[in-house]
Amino acid sequence: IKIVFTCIYSSTNMRLKLPITCFILQIILIILFGVLVQYDEDTDAKKHHHGNHSKTKPDIENDFYYRYPSFQDVHVMIFVGFGFLMTFLQRYGFSSVGFNFLIAAFSLQWATLMQGFFHGLHEGKIHIGVESMINADFCTGSVLISFGAVLGKTSPVQLLFMAVFEVTLFAVNEYILLTHLGTRDAGGSMTIHTFGAYFGLMVTRILYRPNLDKSKHKNCSVYHSDLFAMIGTLYLWMFWPSFNSAITEHGDPQHRTAMNTYYSLAACTLSTYAMSSLTAHDGKLDMVHIQNAALAGGVAAGTAGEMMLTPFGSMIVGFLAGIISVLGYKYLTPILENKLKIQDTCGIHNLHGMPGVLGAIVGAVTASLASKEVYGEGLEKVFPEVAGGHRTASYQGGVQAISLAVTLGMALFGGLIVGFILKLPIFGAPRDTTCFEDSLYWEVRKPQSHFSYAEKKIGTSFSITVLFYKQFLWKTNISD
Amino acid sequence: IKIVFTCIYSSTNMRLKLPITCFILQIILIILFGVLVQYDEDTDAKKHHHGNHSKTKPDIENDFYYRYPSFQDVHVMIFVGFGFLMTFLQRYGFSSVGFNFLIAAFSLQWATLMQGFFHGLHEGKIHIGVESMINADFCTGSVLISFGAVLGKTSPVQLLFMAVFEVTLFAVNEYILLTHLGTRDAGGSMTIHTFGAYFGLMVTRILYRPNLDKSKHKNCSVYHSDLFAMIGTLYLWMFWPSFNSAITEHGDPQHRTAMNTYYSLAACTLSTYAMSSLTAHDGKLDMVHIQNAALAGGVAAGTAGEMMLTPFGSMIVGFLAGIISVLGYKYLTPILENKLKIQDTCGIHNLHGMPGVLGAIVGAVTASLASKEVYGEGLEKVFPEVAGGHRTASYQGGVQAISLAVTLGMALFGGLIVGFILKLPIFGAPRDTTCFEDSLYWEVRKPQSHFSYAEKKIGTSFSITVLFYKQFLWKTNISD
Amino acid sequence: IKIVFTCIYSSTNMRLKLPITCFILQIILIILFGVLVQYDEDTDAKKHHHGNHSKTKPDIENDFYYRYPSFQDVHVMIFVGFGFLMTFLQRYGFSSVGFNFLIAAFSLQWATLMQGFFHGLHEGKIHIGVESMINADFCTGSVLISFGAVLGKTSPVQLLFMAVFEVTLFAVNEYILLTHLGTRDAGGSMTIHTFGAYFGLMVTRILYRPNLDKSKHKNCSVYHSDLFAMIGTLYLWMFWPSFNSAITEHGDPQHRTAMNTYYSLAACTLSTYAMSSLTAHDGKLDMVHIQNAALAGGVAAGTAGEMMLTPFGSMIVGFLAGIISVLGYKYLTPILENKLKIQDTCGIHNLHGMPGVLGAIVGAVTASLASKEVYGEGLEKVFPEVAGGHRTASYQGGVQAISLAVTLGMALFGGLIVGFILKLPIFGAPRDTTCFEDSLYWEVRKPQSHFSYAEKKIGTSFSITVLFYKQFLWKTNISD
Repeated sequence: IKIVFTCIYSSTNMRLKLPITCFILQIILIILFGVLVQYDEDTDAKKHHHGNHSKTKPDIENDFYYRYPSFQDVHVMIFVGFGFLMTFLQRYGFSSVGFNFLIAAFSLQWATLMQGFFHGLHEGKIHIGVESMINADFCTGSVLISFGAVLGKTSPVQLLFMAVFEVTLFAVNEYILLTHLGTRDAGGSMTIHTFGAYFGLMVTRILYRPNLDKSKHKNCSVYHSDLFAMIGTLYLWMFWPSFNSAITEHGDPQHRTAMNTYYSLAACTLSTYAMSSLTAHDGKLDMVHIQNAALAGGVAAGTAGEMMLTPFGSMIVGFLAGIISVLGYKYLTPILENKLKIQDTCGIHNLHGMPGVLGAIVGAVTASLASKEVYGEGLEKVFPEVAGGHRTASYQGGVQAISLAVTLGMALFGGLIVGFILKLPIFGAPRDTTCFEDSLYWEVRKPQSHFSYAEKKIGTSFSITVLFYKQFLWKTNISD
Repeated sequence: IKIVFTCIYSSTNMRLKLPITCFILQIILIILFGVLVQYDEDTDAKKHHHGNHSKTKPDIENDFYYRYPSFQDVHVMIFVGFGFLMTFLQRYGFSSVGFNFLIAAFSLQWATLMQGFFHGLHEGKIHIGVESMINADFCTGSVLISFGAVLGKTSPVQLLFMAVFEVTLFAVNEYILLTHLGTRDAGGSMTIHTFGAYFGLMVTRILYRPNLDKSKHKNCSVYHSDLFAMIGTLYLWMFWPSFNSAITEHGDPQHRTAMNTYYSLAACTLSTYAMSSLTAHDGKLDMVHIQNAALAGGVAAGTAGEMMLTPFGSMIVGFLAGIISVLGYKYLTPILENKLKIQDTCGIHNLHGMPGVLGAIVGAVTASLASKEVYGEGLEKVFPEVAGGHRTASYQGGVQAISLAVTLGMALFGGLIVGFILKLPIFGAPRDTTCFEDSLYWEVRKPQSHFSYAEKKIGTSFSITVLFYKQFLWKTNISD
Repeated sequence: IKIVFTCIYSSTNMRLKLPITCFILQIILIILFGVLVQYDEDTDAKKHHHGNHSKTKPDIENDFYYRYPSFQDVHVMIFVGFGFLMTFLQRYGFSSVGFNFLIAAFSLQWATLMQGFFHGLHEGKIHIGVESMINADFCTGSVLISFGAVLGKTSPVQLLFMAVFEVTLFAVNEYILLTHLGTRDAGGSMTIHTFGAYFGLMVTRILYRPNLDKSKHKNCSVYHSDLFAMIGTLYLWMFWPSFNSAITEHGDPQHRTAMNTYYSLAACTLSTYAMSSLTAHDGKLDMVHIQNAALAGGVAAGTAGEMMLTPFGSMIVGFLAGIISVLGYKYLTPILENKLKIQDTCGIHNLHGMPGVLGAIVGAVTASLASKEVYGEGLEKVFPEVAGGHRTASYQGGVQAISLAVTLGMALFGGLIVGFILKLPIFGAPRDTTCFEDSLYWEVRKPQSHFSYAEKKIGTSFSITVLFYKQFLWKTNISD
């Protein structure tokens, strides 16, 4: 009986596990939304016209018009950007884009609740609008970063459970940083990238598979899959200015953040191409670097982007981010895998981990240099605590540095716990031989077009050969 | 002579038919635009500065800034969303995305005229601006839904003629609903989805092909075509909040509609994954369901999205929409095809038909529950007739229900007539054996890369075999 | 020694050339940005709150909110639009999208400096914000147009050097036109398209390769590469209204430009389909025409789009643009290649060259017809010189025509010089046999999936045949 029981639970057949998980999670979400969630003042028909703050607010000043275009860009990054970036694997495209879709659709709902819960209830209710939608997408981004580390080695049920825990911890960490410490991290170098990366790295460390080389031949790209991945890369690259600026204060901070990120990314792209060519003995560019390292400039501008970093400073940050990211892919990833047993499928340590830490440090330094001379009245919007005289700029810089340490601690500890939970043999994880393989969880149709035609021809050729061989044997027998 | 005549007319060669159709239609459009169309107040250089309403309107309050971002999202859905969603067929990618492009480019021009004609001429002129552009794209969406039903079985000329008639009927139906009945349907659960779906289903019923199984082997996807289709799916999914909110009133209604749709889609995605796995005996997910059913939540939130549906209500609607859509693909589509002779290539009945009807019903119920307590002064924007005291909320709910019936009637009757028109043997429809095949209407280059190399190798092998065989015969003859 | 020297320099190995070029260019950019560039009033924390013009400017009137959505659409056109449009080549997808990415990331930084330098320094400093970001992307677009002419025949180092010179000349030409002549060219029919096209055509003329037919078999598309290219086409097509309207004056001009472009493109699409079918003897549509000629309507509306061209006029312009573009692909491109030795890989003469000239002429005619009766007070925004009484409308028309001549002269002369520079044998240009081939500059992984399986089968079949043949020889020898 125990064997049968184990078989059912550890089976990779998702027929019961996945539907039950999805239904239960979604029903819980619906119930909690019914109990806890309300429209905010800009979304509610009644409040928008009678609320205290909006009595005289014209319709065209609704926050929708100042946040929604950024939200849509972020939304594209989450679903197309992350989704297609991971389609580089030759036989894992359905899962990359499909599981990305599933866990993102779940996470954004769960994040609305968790973030609303921690960021302040209004008489026991969570008020939502376009800003909460952006924040929920941000939190989802963090989960998708972690997904990159375990890509190809986890079942969709494992991923959903990982999302449940990671979103919760993300909200806790964000609450500690933004609300308690007064940290500035508009683009999430710490809260999103560093957290998501080290959480995911720890999870994949716990889920270490010594025999993963059994499916090594599938853990690589083909020509077309690399082009699909470039769709993801480019959308992430183009919309990263919107990402970093999506929830900064209105006016100059939002404008400045977008521009800083734009130049950081541009500089990062040139250093990525340079390093990719330089580190290959035949000087050939590697698609893995282009697809990933060129984005590190966006990650590294996540904290300081809203500050008076200047385009000059942004370009230096992006330039360095591209260099360390390529070096990471080339030299660090093999070490992590062989020495530290961290199997990081997408190399998130190079794209989100190190550049995230760099971004946090740049943010701490830039914050500690903030002054009324540079920011003028605008200091209020970027560093309200400093402008209000509650803390000095260097104190703010210290807080930023401490926030990085807190984030790293939360991520590693959280990843440790969640990794062990995901190790339970009930989630239908793939076997070592079936990693990086869509057909385990997806109905994959056999191609029937040109190839099958070739196969038929081969078949024919082969049959004739065999036929001939038989005839030959027969004839030679005769001739004997 | 009659035979020659028939040959020319029923030939699938498009050399005369397509150019003549395109040129005549476009020239008619240009003439009618020249006679009838004018810039509206926000678009015209003179009126914008001298018009009655805009005397004091600053440039930055031009409606362009409050509608154009939504318009661009809708535009992406129409051309990339619908276009790539239909590329799932292995040998019909050029036609899917290319005919989608053609009929959309025609329909949006024709819709501008038809909608302008019905929605009220200004001294005999049609005034256009960003709102008319969105409405034209909406009407185009309806035609593309119908295209999904007949995909692979129609010539581009048939599709253009279908668009001519469908756009006209769409405008009539929209006019009856919005202007005469005072129906609310901002996201078009009825006017766009229900209308487009049942119109298309009736057309494909009339165009029934008993021997379509002759090209059955081409009516399926391959690995890469499913990934291309996911591009379409994700853009439709991400931008559906913009679609449903594109022409609602400014302020809270637009904000609320986007958010309701966002949550409806998220919930729909989880129920789609659950049902897709549950209905497969090996629990494997089906790309057809993910590509289509996950979008049903957007369709179903089309009418009630602008109302005070609450995120809670939106999630329930999306949840149900995903379930019925997958069930439709799994169990209803085969019945429709075998029993009712409705060959629905893309399964539009499951993505647009049933969820559209669901959306209409949800809209009717939500409307009938509207009250001043819930909407406050905002009632004016969503239900002006109710706010003005001209009708009660339950009367409005009744009107919504009647509108669904009117739409169904118009769609089925229109589809019946248009189906018979398209049956005329002059449009160059493909034969049963050449359905779902690009090379009928497109120059398709033979692949020359790796595969042709393989073919050459096969050829070589085959030649050697044959050569050998001949030698053998000769030798054995000698040895005889 | 001379031979070794030549070998190193003319080698296509990029290991030193590309990194050195990228690093030096990026470091120069960083230094110049550090010395010259400052935030503008809408981007700077201090100026936004203390500047002369913005004392009372609320945050939500920051230009970010009125330009950034257009900027993002333009950004998508530059990176995804141009990038994927060029992936139509079967074995050059990595280079198309990858080199597009590299030279765009460089050009937008360099263009910021060059345009800022010419468009007016503020006390020796270049002030940047969202408008300069859009202008930099525009200039980048011009470089990418030229890239289309030399696609497949140049090394990334050549392309970077081309960008250095072309961006500079672009800025000079733009300065002469916009600042000195007072030309109107919001969408860049002249400054972007005509300039980029004739510059690129001259460069490719100088780089003429008599033996390019050695790699002719690679200079064509395959099925999937054409679908990837359609992603580029559709994004260019959809976002062209944003491109043309991105830097027009706020209010009605921006609104009108977007709408004119929208109708021009729609009409162009129908005439493209018509002509593509009409010019093929079997009436089959050609993907090359659909991918390119359907966009000519956007190019041709680049100058007159902001004027009172009316939708009627826009549609006529688009209609003609589509016709001449397809005719160009069909009949002119072979002549250019065979008679004038202009090897134009992407046919930029048909997409950007001729439609750009058409757009300039339409702009000149429309400008010469401008009047207070038609434009009212809005004349100030479109033709400030005419509204101010400094010149007549027909004089403005003359200036527009002269601007076209200036642009053509600058482009051809610039292309001539730059072409000869790029001919220096130090840039690692590909040999005639390795043109249109990714594996020269990129690490290309061999496909291992289904195909290698086929190859193995072929191998088996082949081995058996050979084995058999040997046996046969042996046997027949024996039997002799």
